[in-house]
Amino acid sequence: MKKIGILNGPNLDRLGKREPKVYGHATLKDLELALRAAATSLGVELAFFQSNHEGELIDKIASWADEGFSGIVSNPGGLTHTSVALRDSLAGSELPVVEVHISNIYRREEFRRHSLTAPVSIAVISGLGFEGYHAALRYLAGKTGKVEKVLS
Amino acid sequence: MKKIGILNGPNLDRLGKREPKVYGHATLKDLELALRAAATSLGVELAFFQSNHEGELIDKIASWADEGFSGIVSNPGGLTHTSVALRDSLAGSELPVVEVHISNIYRREEFRRHSLTAPVSIAVISGLGFEGYHAALRYLAGKTGKVEKVLS
Amino acid sequence: MKKIGILNGPNLDRLGKREPKVYGHATLKDLELALRAAATSLGVELAFFQSNHEGELIDKIASWADEGFSGIVSNPGGLTHTSVALRDSLAGSELPVVEVHISNIYRREEFRRHSLTAPVSIAVISGLGFEGYHAALRYLAGKTGKVEKVLS
Amino acid sequence: MKKIGILNGPNLDRLGKREPKVYGHATLKDLELALRAAATSLGVELAFFQSNHEGELIDKIASWADEGFSGIVSNPGGLTHTSVALRDSLAGSELPVVEVHISNIYRREEFRRHSLTAPVSIAVISGLGFEGYHAALRYLAGKTGKVEKVLS
Amino acid sequence: MKKIGILNGPNLDRLGKREPKVYGHATLKDLELALRAAATSLGVELAFFQSNHEGELIDKIASWADEGFSGIVSNPGGLTHTSVALRDSLAGSELPVVEVHISNIYRREEFRRHSLTAPVSIAVISGLGFEGYHAALRYLAGKTGKVEKVLS
Amino acid sequence: MKKIGILNGPNLDRLGKREPKVYGHATLKDLELALRAAATSLGVELAFFQSNHEGELIDKIASWADEGFSGIVSNPGGLTHTSVALRDSLAGSELPVVEVHISNIYRREEFRRHSLTAPVSIAVISGLGFEGYHAALRYLAGKTGKVEKVLS
Amino acid sequence: MKKIGILNGPNLDRLGKREPKVYGHATLKDLELALRAAATSLGVELAFFQSNHEGELIDKIASWADEGFSGIVSNPGGLTHTSVALRDSLAGSELPVVEVHISNIYRREEFRRHSLTAPVSIAVISGLGFEGYHAALRYLAGKTGKVEKVLS
Amino acid sequence: MKKIGILNGPNLDRLGKREPKVYGHATLKDLELALRAAATSLGVELAFFQSNHEGELIDKIASWADEGFSGIVSNPGGLTHTSVALRDSLAGSELPVVEVHISNIYRREEFRRHSLTAPVSIAVISGLGFEGYHAALRYLAGKTGKVEKVLS
Amino acid sequence: MKKIGILNGPNLDRLGKREPKVYGHATLKDLELALRAAATSLGVELAFFQSNHEGELIDKIASWADEGFSGIVSNPGGLTHTSVALRDSLAGSELPVVEVHISNIYRREEFRRHSLTAPVSIAVISGLGFEGYHAALRYLAGKTGKVEKVLS
Amino acid sequence: MKKIGILNGPNLDRLGKREPKVYGHATLKDLELALRAAATSLGVELAFFQSNHEGELIDKIASWADEGFSGIVSNPGGLTHTSVALRDSLAGSELPVVEVHISNIYRREEFRRHSLTAPVSIAVISGLGFEGYHAALRYLAGKTGKVEKVLS
Amino acid sequence: MKKIGILNGPNLDRLGKREPKVYGHATLKDLELALRAAATSLGVELAFFQSNHEGELIDKIASWADEGFSGIVSNPGGLTHTSVALRDSLAGSELPVVEVHISNIYRREEFRRHSLTAPVSIAVISGLGFEGYHAALRYLAGKTGKVEKVLS
Amino acid sequence: MKKIGILNGPNLDRLGKREPKVYGHATLKDLELALRAAATSLGVELAFFQSNHEGELIDKIASWADEGFSGIVSNPGGLTHTSVALRDSLAGSELPVVEVHISNIYRREEFRRHSLTAPVSIAVISGLGFEGYHAALRYLAGKTGKVEKVLS
Repeated sequence: MKKIGILNGPNLDRLGKREPKVYGHATLKDLELALRAAATSLGVELAFFQSNHEGELIDKIASWADEGFSGIVSNPGGLTHTSVALRDSLAGSELPVVEVHISNIYRREEFRRHSLTAPVSIAVISGLGFEGYHAALRYLAGKTGKVEKVLS
Repeated sequence: MKKIGILNGPNLDRLGKREPKVYGHATLKDLELALRAAATSLGVELAFFQSNHEGELIDKIASWADEGFSGIVSNPGGLTHTSVALRDSLAGSELPVVEVHISNIYRREEFRRHSLTAPVSIAVISGLGFEGYHAALRYLAGKTGKVEKVLS
Repeated sequence: MKKIGILNGPNLDRLGKREPKVYGHATLKDLELALRAAATSLGVELAFFQSNHEGELIDKIASWADEGFSGIVSNPGGLTHTSVALRDSLAGSELPVVEVHISNIYRREEFRRHSLTAPVSIAVISGLGFEGYHAALRYLAGKTGKVEKVLS
Repeated sequence: MKKIGILNGPNLDRLGKREPKVYGHATLKDLELALRAAATSLGVELAFFQSNHEGELIDKIASWADEGFSGIVSNPGGLTHTSVALRDSLAGSELPVVEVHISNIYRREEFRRHSLTAPVSIAVISGLGFEGYHAALRYLAGKTGKVEKVLS
Repeated sequence: MKKIGILNGPNLDRLGKREPKVYGHATLKDLELALRAAATSLGVELAFFQSNHEGELIDKIASWADEGFSGIVSNPGGLTHTSVALRDSLAGSELPVVEVHISNIYRREEFRRHSLTAPVSIAVISGLGFEGYHAALRYLAGKTGKVEKVLS
Repeated sequence: MKKIGILNGPNLDRLGKREPKVYGHATLKDLELALRAAATSLGVELAFFQSNHEGELIDKIASWADEGFSGIVSNPGGLTHTSVALRDSLAGSELPVVEVHISNIYRREEFRRHSLTAPVSIAVISGLGFEGYHAALRYLAGKTGKVEKVLS
Repeated sequence: MKKIGILNGPNLDRLGKREPKVYGHATLKDLELALRAAATSLGVELAFFQSNHEGELIDKIASWADEGFSGIVSNPGGLTHTSVALRDSLAGSELPVVEVHISNIYRREEFRRHSLTAPVSIAVISGLGFEGYHAALRYLAGKTGKVEKVLS
Repeated sequence: MKKIGILNGPNLDRLGKREPKVYGHATLKDLELALRAAATSLGVELAFFQSNHEGELIDKIASWADEGFSGIVSNPGGLTHTSVALRDSLAGSELPVVEVHISNIYRREEFRRHSLTAPVSIAVISGLGFEGYHAALRYLAGKTGKVEKVLS
Repeated sequence: MKKIGILNGPNLDRLGKREPKVYGHATLKDLELALRAAATSLGVELAFFQSNHEGELIDKIASWADEGFSGIVSNPGGLTHTSVALRDSLAGSELPVVEVHISNIYRREEFRRHSLTAPVSIAVISGLGFEGYHAALRYLAGKTGKVEKVLS
Repeated sequence: MKKIGILNGPNLDRLGKREPKVYGHATLKDLELALRAAATSLGVELAFFQSNHEGELIDKIASWADEGFSGIVSNPGGLTHTSVALRDSLAGSELPVVEVHISNIYRREEFRRHSLTAPVSIAVISGLGFEGYHAALRYLAGKTGKVEKVLS
Repeated sequence: MKKIGILNGPNLDRLGKREPKVYGHATLKDLELALRAAATSLGVELAFFQSNHEGELIDKIASWADEGFSGIVSNPGGLTHTSVALRDSLAGSELPVVEVHISNIYRREEFRRHSLTAPVSIAVISGLGFEGYHAALRYLAGKTGKVEKVLS
Repeated sequence: MKKIGILNGPNLDRLGKREPKVYGHATLKDLELALRAAATSLGVELAFFQSNHEGELIDKIASWADEGFSGIVSNPGGLTHTSVALRDSLAGSELPVVEVHISNIYRREEFRRHSLTAPVSIAVISGLGFEGYHAALRYLAGKTGKVEKVLS
């Protein structure tokens, strides 16, 4: 049975806890439950991980690669724009990655338009809210095998 | 019944005609048929338009806005990176737009990473192939009403 | 009798049709009527042309040059910032051009501050609304003959 | 009765004194007289001020704001491109400002294309010669009340 | 018999009509006749196309590719520096392209030194006047088959 | 009783341990003691936290926000210039933040002049040594309630 | 008895006179009175100077240096970002300078983030409102003697 | 007996585990064993540390400085290009550092050519594979005492 | 008898008053006396002017132009790098200008390498100390008549 | 009889000696022989010179100018992008120059797109292989007299 | 027997002759003797060449390639940062190159951080002093055969 | 007796030979004779050297340093803007250098405003024609001893 990892980076644990009028009351737990339900109907196994620590995210990616995962849905949060180490980790996993951003990063500060991790990903979805995770999961569930390494 | 426009810009009429080993044999017609099928099951009406002429794309967006469309799935092709006029047209329509790119623009030439139209869109999907159009259509089918104008 | 062309580029056909609370209800037709009235009292003949197609604008400029026009009031819309072809066309006409923008382009997005067409124009008026066209028309009505070519 | 200030910055006192073959023999005094005549027919009161001193220009703008002026026609000369202090003064006056340049700044050195004061102005007229002042005066004579503050 | 297309972009229809003292009296028609004569002696068939419309140029390139042309001599005019869509069209044709500019673009404005289309061309000739077209035609007449795709 | 957090980032645990001739012998412990004394006289409660781990700093900011703190005195050390994740965490806390740097960052390497966290802070104090922390604490002790979110 | 100068640049004479809803009703005179009271309790003598003229500010700095002042609290207003002459004057005084900005310059326009005078100052306080002046005064009251020249 | 630390940053624990055809089968453990053997013959003591966590690397550098180490061989991996905090830590240790990169960073992506840590190092070796560590170790084994601080 | 103006900008009145160990004890008065002596032997008349006020410098240049001066030796101090107004004033005078800097501006901060006034001067001498003024004076004493205007 | 110089810069002596599978087996000698044959039929005299020494190339250009040559076909190799001295030499010769590059410099590294010598040349041919030399020779054989100096 | 070339560029002949207090008294001759001794024990033959002439260095690299050398230890001195011709020569030799710099170029002027030759080298060693040459020699002595061409 | 070297770089041997209407008929030989006469009256010995070869200039500077020269008047021609090797040579000589340019480099192409050699010189004179050499010689004749090394 195909295993897919859902990776969330810094501050995504705060979903639903801050500014509910803007972001709604849905929490990271709500996202996890919805994705697990979707995974069941897609027939894939899901691992779900969030951390505010760059190092823990890198450790987890490496272990997922060792455990034979088939792909990663990755929302690196603020690390998207600054972490070469995370980029190297994703690229080194040789797994297909779909990068997801809840908001449209093109409509925010200039520095958010530059993504270090997008060039080592298969695809990027930005601005679809939680639906972005679902679209990514569906896409990866339909893929098989290792990708060619994408260190560009 | 909700109407949604699928807009394809320059060179997308060549899908399936060039480099079939790379892009596959699926043509723009195939994409249209698949999206029409999806639209039926989503209960929305679909308009499909492709042109290599910037002016025709702008004309079409304006007429869709006048005809009360609910949203646009837009793949502006090479105009993504160069056309302020198209950006103004999309923004002026006051419709929710989801921008789609078949390939991951972050893995191509540097100049493709800059999008003039993304900041006036709700969301951007890049690299999911034809599935990007489907995800965009599903997302817009679930939305209602006009969006706040997004001239940033 | 002196002939002056009024050239409007992409999206200016939408004046008065979108966001009336912001831009008012005056349409491009209203602008044309007001300018024709002004032309009559200034004793000049007016040609009025709008297109969303860069190519049609270039064709028109060339024909105006061939027909012995005395000047052009030009609002290239979004092409202002991106079209070298339009710049070359205006410069090649060897006619005096006054560039007009309805809003003050210095108070909008950064990329609107760069104008490719302004350096081949006699003057630029930005932010005076419809009055900008009138000021430009009055100015050109008082000019005579060909200008030195302004390819800079 | 509405009061409007005409502000001229560094070196504009030299009009008509240098290079008469290029700029003509019209002096700043000539400009003042012509504008005073126009003001009379427009039914507005005119204040006219020129200085080569940034500080005096700022002092004058502040006093005009205190005296209840309705608008400023401003040609900051070389300070256009370098003075944040003047920008702050114009913005702080909360008066509508129309910026005027006698020549087309887009056809001169690159550094003249950047204007610090334009973004805090209602409009910019560049290249119409003395007619630019007249167009600006006519425009402001038709306006009423304070503008929303334009510190951007 | 080998077919080669001669493509001319915006404003090149004005050759010989403007500034004859500078550019001479030779028109685009003269160029076409001379190239047709040369083609005859080289034993190749010639198609000749000019348009001020980006979209028509893209349409034509696609149809030449479908009709089995052997190469394109391309002078995109002002689109050289701004059109990603034209670049994609030339690259997508998979035909060998020789880019020609009548004047030496290195001796004109800075923005003309950047060419979006040159990197997807086999060669670039700039500054040889009409002789540039002849050299390009001779070169392509000696080539055979498709080129490897040049999307860089 | 109002609670205020004092946050110190990477390498600030080394204060007083390196280069005592330059930085003096005062340690982070000395700073804590002095600030606790000041807090007592200001009638506020103090939490004091230092870490070399970005993730731990983010965790702590989130927990302070949950525990109803009134403000944060933040010295992010080297993360000031590189961490979007920390910026997002501070902004997401919706607490007033005063950023403090012991040395004047304008007199050091160029890259230290760029602060990612300053735009989401109320104020920045740089170069006052330990007195910067005291000034920040005094300022926050006099403030009440939540601040408008400062994501800029 | 130690003498400390409080220097305020262009437009700071307008404090309390414009936008009282935003900046409050406190004027520059109020600031002076509050600082004089603070100076008395700190046992230092205060000189207070404001001008909209760069030259007068430079003259004053030079005379303060000649009169044996112990330090300067400097808010150069808009000159912060543009005046090399003021920078040279502050550096040439060889006095310790604390630069103060009422608002947080990191949250305003991009060009305000660059300070020419900060690198020749001991410290910078930005965003603390009037409290910034008090913190700077307290700091300088505790300092003695000349500083090493800070021309960087 | 002289102690030298070997520091390896993010993703270097994956050596030999990924892409063995490219990087070979040698693991980080193999490197450690080879360096320990070399250390013995050089008469120095070796500490070996790898972490994917920036904070742990900083903690370790500080403890090595406290324990009287004589130098550090440092391969910061992706942090090389992004971490000011690590730079400050290395500089604050006042130890001689030799930076090592297994591959030649000049032949990879543009952003890898910029090193934040190299300016606070004694030397940089890039592209020699494992031999880079050996050369660095030999060099440091021959050095004595503290280095002048290298904050530049 | 030929008249030549010696113009000194901001902070040059402080020569000999600050850092005598570095700059020596020679004052601006000493420079004036030495130049007057040299002028006598060269048979030219000298006007000497220093001000910290940009506006006064501009006023003086204009009056020198009106009084028929033959040239200007100009050391604009910090205004060299920032004042377009001064540049315009020098250019508008149509007099030959030799720009002098006491120190070599190429060996100081990066921003001092950019001179706005040098392109409207005949020559630039930087780093020769007071001898630079003498060389400039000698040069101008040997010149005659107006120069072609140097607005570049 | 008209004399034309063929100038080849650094590394062009290696043609045919390296990578014959890529560049073919044709050597510089082969090029010379082919061009001499072409010169004979064109009725011009040929001088052929190659050097890896910038100074020798400059010496040769000067001597060709003194000897009354009619033009230069120049391939400066790597000096194209770096040598102001060579540019000055070509411009100083006042001879018409056609610059030739064997490969298309727009398809190689970014730094090769910038040419210091192209702006002082009549034309540039890039990517036509040896045919570029022939086209250049034919073009120059048809020209007469000195060109206006091209120092831009 | 394997032959390895040691190439030293401009100014390296001055080693030991200038600033002995800084660089020590060791000369280029001393370096050669030490390397020859090392070569003997490594069983390789050494060629040693220094020149201040770019052209001679290029000539030598070409002859070494022709003579079947196995590798080059290259210290191009100041040409490192400016010579495309030298880069092309090293790349064209198809030999493995190890670039050596005596000092750490990351700790010197900004322009020294950019190396044109490093991307066509196998490895770069910077800051190890003479030991850098030895490490490079040892590394190349252990290599065999030609490298893939490294023109990037 | 003090020895001073006059160094002239590429193309300066062409003085008086090209464009006599612009540059006059004075040759490099004339300059040498005039400077020798001046040297005699100043009581210094003169060496005069010109070369188009960077390497020869570097060789000469080194030999002048070895022969105990007191200073160098240097006009590096086009190498001014491109040669790090020449900069290193001048700096390494530890001699005071005065850089001379015949024309005002600030009034020519943008790339000529950047000088690599100026920061290692005592002074720069640009635009004084041959008088620049005389002023430099007079200045150096009055100096004594070695200068502190100026590698910046």
